[in-house]
Amino acid sequence: MASNLSERHWEELIAVAGNGLLDRRAFLTSGAALAGGFMSYALARSAAAEPLADDPWSRETGAVTPALQAPSRFEKQVVRTLSNPNNETRTSHARTPHHLVNGTFTPNSLHFTINHSGIPDIDPDQHRLVIHGLVRQPLAFTVESLSRYPLVSRMSFVECGGNSAPMFSSEPVQATAQALHGLVSCAEWTGVRLSTLLEETGIDPKAKWLIAEGADSLALSRSVPVKKALDDAMIALYQNGERLMPGNGYPMRLLLPGYEGNMNVKFLRRLKLVEQPAMSYYEGRTYSQILPGGKAYRFYFVQEVKSFITHPSFGLRMNGPGYYEISGIAYSGDGRISKVMVSADGGRSWGQAALQEPVLPKAFTRFRMPWRWDGGPAVLLSRAWDEARNVQPLRAEFVAARGQTRKPVTNPMSFSNQHYNSITSWGIGSNGEVKHVYV
Amino acid sequence: MASNLSERHWEELIAVAGNGLLDRRAFLTSGAALAGGFMSYALARSAAAEPLADDPWSRETGAVTPALQAPSRFEKQVVRTLSNPNNETRTSHARTPHHLVNGTFTPNSLHFTINHSGIPDIDPDQHRLVIHGLVRQPLAFTVESLSRYPLVSRMSFVECGGNSAPMFSSEPVQATAQALHGLVSCAEWTGVRLSTLLEETGIDPKAKWLIAEGADSLALSRSVPVKKALDDAMIALYQNGERLMPGNGYPMRLLLPGYEGNMNVKFLRRLKLVEQPAMSYYEGRTYSQILPGGKAYRFYFVQEVKSFITHPSFGLRMNGPGYYEISGIAYSGDGRISKVMVSADGGRSWGQAALQEPVLPKAFTRFRMPWRWDGGPAVLLSRAWDEARNVQPLRAEFVAARGQTRKPVTNPMSFSNQHYNSITSWGIGSNGEVKHVYV
Repeated sequence: MASNLSERHWEELIAVAGNGLLDRRAFLTSGAALAGGFMSYALARSAAAEPLADDPWSRETGAVTPALQAPSRFEKQVVRTLSNPNNETRTSHARTPHHLVNGTFTPNSLHFTINHSGIPDIDPDQHRLVIHGLVRQPLAFTVESLSRYPLVSRMSFVECGGNSAPMFSSEPVQATAQALHGLVSCAEWTGVRLSTLLEETGIDPKAKWLIAEGADSLALSRSVPVKKALDDAMIALYQNGERLMPGNGYPMRLLLPGYEGNMNVKFLRRLKLVEQPAMSYYEGRTYSQILPGGKAYRFYFVQEVKSFITHPSFGLRMNGPGYYEISGIAYSGDGRISKVMVSADGGRSWGQAALQEPVLPKAFTRFRMPWRWDGGPAVLLSRAWDEARNVQPLRAEFVAARGQTRKPVTNPMSFSNQHYNSITSWGIGSNGEVKHVYV
Repeated sequence: MASNLSERHWEELIAVAGNGLLDRRAFLTSGAALAGGFMSYALARSAAAEPLADDPWSRETGAVTPALQAPSRFEKQVVRTLSNPNNETRTSHARTPHHLVNGTFTPNSLHFTINHSGIPDIDPDQHRLVIHGLVRQPLAFTVESLSRYPLVSRMSFVECGGNSAPMFSSEPVQATAQALHGLVSCAEWTGVRLSTLLEETGIDPKAKWLIAEGADSLALSRSVPVKKALDDAMIALYQNGERLMPGNGYPMRLLLPGYEGNMNVKFLRRLKLVEQPAMSYYEGRTYSQILPGGKAYRFYFVQEVKSFITHPSFGLRMNGPGYYEISGIAYSGDGRISKVMVSADGGRSWGQAALQEPVLPKAFTRFRMPWRWDGGPAVLLSRAWDEARNVQPLRAEFVAARGQTRKPVTNPMSFSNQHYNSITSWGIGSNGEVKHVYV
């Protein structure tokens, strides 16, 4: 129990990179086993002996049990932030508070949504999904009939093509991880493989695309390659165990794991098999990826490998020097995350973070890194790799390839470019304040 | 696309057990690949050509986006059922609607709770966890200080020792899977390993037990072996990504993966290390396991291997003959589920169900079995095995070992025995009605 090693000694033994980063195996084995001595985080206060004082809530009977439970009143700040709270005739964004949650996926109440014409109030008994076009037999599916097919469950993130758009600013926007990166979330989706349904309809060999259309008043539509439809596409009916949230496509949505969020058409009412893509509004205009030379990618499907630190991050307070866990999320539309490296000195040195098991393809992976903050300036970065050998680009590389808004725009949250997957850096001041910085 | 095989032909090819059970690999590969011909579920209707008719919700702008999203108004029936809705001075149960959810874990709104003295309204900034007794250094931990330790996330079920108590009835109680088995749920819990905190306090070698005490007005307490505390016990701070629900122990609870629910002390305010167990009310009386001869187990910790079918089940309607997915959940306090067998003929023949990956230890595993119901009588059973080679007992074996209530009691949901882990059987009538039966 006692140790002859000083605190300094074991810290040196487990240091892996500059400015206080420690070996991730401190998470996997006990600190004592790793450092060969007693490991003290020194975060708790000495406790007095008995009796413990009773707090007010220990002295009276508590509240009634509700049919649906909801968070404590002390967690009122843990909400999605809304871009259009009065439902004016424009797009409504609701962003996930990544800096206030933890774990490996997003609870349904906090899953991000974007709705371009409000949230339709769909009667699931009346709703139909029709698959038609270049098929042998056009078919109409109800929620009930879909529920009788073989179902599958999988974790998958969904990310808006416009997530992290403020990162295109030429100056770092001072905002939370929620404001910067809140248009990505992760859930367990349960539904029917689209390939199963396409076996039922049959596919004409001439069909190369599906046009997916929603039942919202916009009839939002996107073109999807048949190859993706036959790979891992799903008609999702359940989200984290319960029926889809209305904002996430109730009663059914197309799920294209790893593909741009907007393609995962919600309120799905139609899949039409065709020879050519539709070049619809959202693929031809809004989510076009415009490059610095003025050209654009014709299509952008796969959300590329990415990570960002959520703890600590802008809006959170560092309460004095000492131990902290640096943690965040990493994900890739190309498969599993293979590695996340973290720096505390602005990218001069890097240490490998622990990845929370199980690491699943096209899903959030929580990474964690032990850190001893010495109270001085620090700049925290994370960088992710995936199993397809893609690496999250450094900011200079990314800006050179994809461009940057030259001047701050009027609305600091409104930037016209898309698909930012480069690094986010948090600068820690000696006063414990966390700022958004570029390195 | 076309096939020379009749529907009858491929059904024979993939039959694995009596009364319509089909090979689980129909879920893993396409039916066509398995059967060597086109596989038709014949569940969808032929669809007319364009244009699709617009439903009312497709003709108007939808609803406003809320800060916290909640289920559709068409899902009002998906709630926990309450045993004490007026918060009288007795225990309050809230049961998970297993027959109405799907996937591999329970959303927070629907996670079961039992509270013996209401739900305390705890200010997380004021709450402390004290670890004391046979330690080197008693310590007090705040939510904030715990959040700075290395965190881990894991899926784990929690099950009340009294879950499934109606199964002790001598006659099958006609009730849903929610009413029978709703006191078990599964979530991803994120928190600090208890072993990390016990390294901080140090442990006197004489300490063999911890007395865990909650901050509810009952000061509910249970005794936990130090060995379990040093194995996989956690002080949980987050549940499915967000802070714990108030009914599940906000702001912190003890999580003992696989152990009886009541031991996972909520609102945790104290862990006292001692030489002997406390033999507290809930371990000495309520959750004692009484055996047919009148003796009782001294302790009952591990929730044993178990499964039940959720779809179809009592309260759900069979809408005519044809294909259905039989699905349910399996779990074991001893580790991973290794196998689930399903019968459609009352246990005369069995086929192996598909297990939804990833199969995680001490967590729900969703099993799925393809079934063609011929419209005649059927009796559906499931039986689970775990990696520790435990097998879910048949009902006759279980009743012989653990007993059964001789006569129906006044309140059909109130039975005094505990820890039922035997089989649940659903009888399907020719009219599509599902009854609870014993076989």
